[in-house]
Amino acid sequence: MTYFEKLSAIRKQMSEQQIDAYIIPSSDPHISEYLPDRFKCIAFVSGFTGSAGTLVITQNFAGLWTDSRYFVQANDQLKNTGFELVKLKTQGAAEYITWLTEHLEAGNTVAFDGKLASVYVAKQLIDQLQPHKILINGTVDLLDRIWQDRPALPKEKAYILENELVGESIPEKISKVREAMKKFNAGYHLVSSLDDIAWIFNLRGSDVKCNPVVLSFALVEPAKTTLFINGNKLVQGDKEMLEGQGVTIVEYDALEEALRQLPAGETVLLDPKRTCYAVYTQIPQYERVIETLNPSTTLKACKNDIEAEHTRQTMVKDGVALTEFFKWLEEQLGKEDLTEIGIAEKLLAFRQKQHDFVNESFDTIAGYMEHGALPHYKATEQSNAVLKEEGLLLLDSGGQYKTGTTDITRVVSLGSTTDAERMDYTLVLKAMIEGSTAIFPKGSKGYQIDAITRKPLWDRLRNYGHGTGHGVGFFLNVHEGPHVFNTANIDIAIEEGMITSIEPGLYREGRYGIRIENLVLSVRDQETEFGEFMAFETLTLCYIDTSLVDKTLLDQKHIDWLNQYNNMVYERLSPHLDATHQQWLAHKTAII
Amino acid sequence: MTYFEKLSAIRKQMSEQQIDAYIIPSSDPHISEYLPDRFKCIAFVSGFTGSAGTLVITQNFAGLWTDSRYFVQANDQLKNTGFELVKLKTQGAAEYITWLTEHLEAGNTVAFDGKLASVYVAKQLIDQLQPHKILINGTVDLLDRIWQDRPALPKEKAYILENELVGESIPEKISKVREAMKKFNAGYHLVSSLDDIAWIFNLRGSDVKCNPVVLSFALVEPAKTTLFINGNKLVQGDKEMLEGQGVTIVEYDALEEALRQLPAGETVLLDPKRTCYAVYTQIPQYERVIETLNPSTTLKACKNDIEAEHTRQTMVKDGVALTEFFKWLEEQLGKEDLTEIGIAEKLLAFRQKQHDFVNESFDTIAGYMEHGALPHYKATEQSNAVLKEEGLLLLDSGGQYKTGTTDITRVVSLGSTTDAERMDYTLVLKAMIEGSTAIFPKGSKGYQIDAITRKPLWDRLRNYGHGTGHGVGFFLNVHEGPHVFNTANIDIAIEEGMITSIEPGLYREGRYGIRIENLVLSVRDQETEFGEFMAFETLTLCYIDTSLVDKTLLDQKHIDWLNQYNNMVYERLSPHLDATHQQWLAHKTAII
Repeated sequence: MTYFEKLSAIRKQMSEQQIDAYIIPSSDPHISEYLPDRFKCIAFVSGFTGSAGTLVITQNFAGLWTDSRYFVQANDQLKNTGFELVKLKTQGAAEYITWLTEHLEAGNTVAFDGKLASVYVAKQLIDQLQPHKILINGTVDLLDRIWQDRPALPKEKAYILENELVGESIPEKISKVREAMKKFNAGYHLVSSLDDIAWIFNLRGSDVKCNPVVLSFALVEPAKTTLFINGNKLVQGDKEMLEGQGVTIVEYDALEEALRQLPAGETVLLDPKRTCYAVYTQIPQYERVIETLNPSTTLKACKNDIEAEHTRQTMVKDGVALTEFFKWLEEQLGKEDLTEIGIAEKLLAFRQKQHDFVNESFDTIAGYMEHGALPHYKATEQSNAVLKEEGLLLLDSGGQYKTGTTDITRVVSLGSTTDAERMDYTLVLKAMIEGSTAIFPKGSKGYQIDAITRKPLWDRLRNYGHGTGHGVGFFLNVHEGPHVFNTANIDIAIEEGMITSIEPGLYREGRYGIRIENLVLSVRDQETEFGEFMAFETLTLCYIDTSLVDKTLLDQKHIDWLNQYNNMVYERLSPHLDATHQQWLAHKTAII
Repeated sequence: MTYFEKLSAIRKQMSEQQIDAYIIPSSDPHISEYLPDRFKCIAFVSGFTGSAGTLVITQNFAGLWTDSRYFVQANDQLKNTGFELVKLKTQGAAEYITWLTEHLEAGNTVAFDGKLASVYVAKQLIDQLQPHKILINGTVDLLDRIWQDRPALPKEKAYILENELVGESIPEKISKVREAMKKFNAGYHLVSSLDDIAWIFNLRGSDVKCNPVVLSFALVEPAKTTLFINGNKLVQGDKEMLEGQGVTIVEYDALEEALRQLPAGETVLLDPKRTCYAVYTQIPQYERVIETLNPSTTLKACKNDIEAEHTRQTMVKDGVALTEFFKWLEEQLGKEDLTEIGIAEKLLAFRQKQHDFVNESFDTIAGYMEHGALPHYKATEQSNAVLKEEGLLLLDSGGQYKTGTTDITRVVSLGSTTDAERMDYTLVLKAMIEGSTAIFPKGSKGYQIDAITRKPLWDRLRNYGHGTGHGVGFFLNVHEGPHVFNTANIDIAIEEGMITSIEPGLYREGRYGIRIENLVLSVRDQETEFGEFMAFETLTLCYIDTSLVDKTLLDQKHIDWLNQYNNMVYERLSPHLDATHQQWLAHKTAII
């Protein structure tokens, strides 16, 4: 079926069912960012493979709403599909709802599949469309009939991590979740988000590419905890271990019935942004629902000492793999045909040599020259560029290790560089250093770190269209909340133990892209008469290319930081490198 | 009546009326920050005279919730009143509601005077207390019976400003408000906030100290505009002028009846944070109420070219007065007895010599040595310090001119200075310069400017407990929204034409306080491939004392800014100064 045929087939069903607009969000029943194949509905319908977007289909119009990260990609992928790109003004905003209010009439019906929409999004739809007397139906899946070889739910195996690895037992975690429930007087807590469940039950798997999570739901009560999971996923030993720790295991698809059977007059706590509408609507109307952040999201974000220490060790392993990779790249360039896809595979191979490595934490972005200007570029067979001895290469990659998750971006020059490239690179580096060295009062928010990081770029009338940083899990999702460093007014304090990326960038369309990214751990700094202050400990260990630095654009404090950082990289990695790699890294990390 | 007797009298009435907790907010029927004497209820009941706070009275407890700006003052003023200070964690938050939920029982009644609570606060109360089955009564004034000489509503005269002064006619402004109403499909717009009304009708008066506003309400409809105002306030000519421009004038106290008589099925737009609950509850239940920022608040914040130009000229007048004052101060120090109150009066006298000067824009804060450490200090007869030839003097003052509103803080040394003082002063100056020279993408928010301003202080483990800046009106309130530069996640973009203060500080309890404040105008900067950028034009014209500067703590760019700023002050003010003042200012603004 071509995309045009799919669109026609959807429109035909819409006519039959008297649906005037059909919405396809990018999501799954767990409101995941990365989706199991079964829920890659937008790619199936329109060909667009970006990680964020919404399709809206009427009889006269078919559009994809997505944000600036994906404008170029969407323009490309939507060619000859019948869909057109609608550019979001604000990343993540449901701006298509306004479009619906402007293009539909009273009495029209808007439909979507409640499994793919969060409670939050569904309520926004209802709140904004109902005043216009537009009807909403959240129970319609128009894809199932036309998606003949639709993938089944993943059946991958799952496993429980040892306490020594994660530093906290399942009962300890459940007990903390229960404490939080008490504050809300909540008798039930429904957990739908896979990373929250993974954290609570020390459970990992491979149901979603790059995210070591397991399709499941959980229902926590004061005296009972139920894990809804396909029973075949767990080995008997893990099942017994879970049951021994007070966890009742029930089949994955039994959740909805369990919700319908809740005793009357109960209070159910759930996260409206991480619970799907289809599940939510199974909770009987007579229950009181408290909509708030999952308590485990906040708990999970603050890594304990053991998680932090394991992550530090993981950075050594990742740094060794990266050092081996960059040395290999430098030496092979010009000798063999290197492509974006080829080097990403080679980098994976280096990581795979490291102990406890499981998988990539996301698809490697190897963006050569103009491809680097696409912040979320993923090389395809068509686009796959051959590397030459010139231009900038942007490499954003990460690993899932049983001992932690990594995410790092470096830019290297493959030949001679221009003044413009050096200036942009140096300003991005300056921004990264400003963020990394920030000292800030306890209670500060991500938007404050974001502003401090961007300032060196703003000063030179430069900026980047993405956030400055995202939370990172412990052997879990590479994007995890609740904290984030970006320009939005998100009121989440930076807490001790949070791991976040700092990754400013600059993108020159058609020419090159620059992004430099480290992960940092939030730590306490000093307390003075003005209060408690916090700072960041840089975790990532990989040399920063100094050949691209224009020292005249940096203050001495930035040069000092760069030299100290590169020296630390050498000191920590060299014990794990052979002599030729040590020598090569010593050269790369030489003081400037 | 002593404060204890007042508290007893209130408690007696509470018993009689079966009220378990009585709340007294700091407000008036227009939700003003500065209050007419009639509504200074907290001062009447507890003696506390700060501009922000809430009293909560039960039979066993009486407390004042206020924020860190007022901790010292409240501790002092509440002595022997029966009230105790409860320290707010977040400025402006209604934290007493949590206290009520913890200290009251189901079936208890909480009462307040709906004239003193915004719709927003009243709804917070209802939303948070109702789940605890606590009853709420918003129609109880327990003060009227015990406040025997309670001041009447002010009867001051009001007047209309010429179009040449404000740059925009009343019909033009009403037409813009109507356009905004259209977007909400609102047939009625109730305006309660006095500065909004003053702006819409180019109306000024002196009903509230330092704020040139007039007690009034307005009701805007698509084809009719009603101003509710005491008819004696306006001269016949102004009345006729208003009526000639389509404004119907009705008595102030006719508003509530007008609301009760609204035709059924209408849509009423109002600002829940700037409309009192008593007025709100007069709107019949069958109306649809849209709660949003008053459109005039956003319109008013962006000064037109004429307002901006008048403000620039006003800064010259204010700067001349300040120059004369600081020269006088320097020369009289040691010769006559100077006190905090005395110098504030003298400064007022200098301002009064300036054309179009009307009044102070707020009570001058003249804080000598340790008094400077109280950000909202106001000298009383008891505290009034005598100035000696030593220590730091903090002077925060402003003027209302028909041509604009000023607000400026300077710190000067009256004798020798210590290293610690110079370091703190220089770091505050550095922060002020960082904020003033910020370049930022169009659409940036106040919290971003706030972070950039604070960074030089954070870097040295220092901070201040107040915001970095507030909006300032055009011959209107010295504090005006919707924009603000502070740490809170307030999602208001900085627009072209906004006037805001930039006023970082440092406070050493018991020793000294430092704050340096200029007003800045938001202006367009350049547009690049990364988008449109904005910057600030500094408006305030008064030399910054360089004798306190430690150059080693500044980068060259800060020193350059300081020299250029002081030079600009000299260039703009000297044509309006006599030779001796020119000479004195030349010395003060000499390059460092």
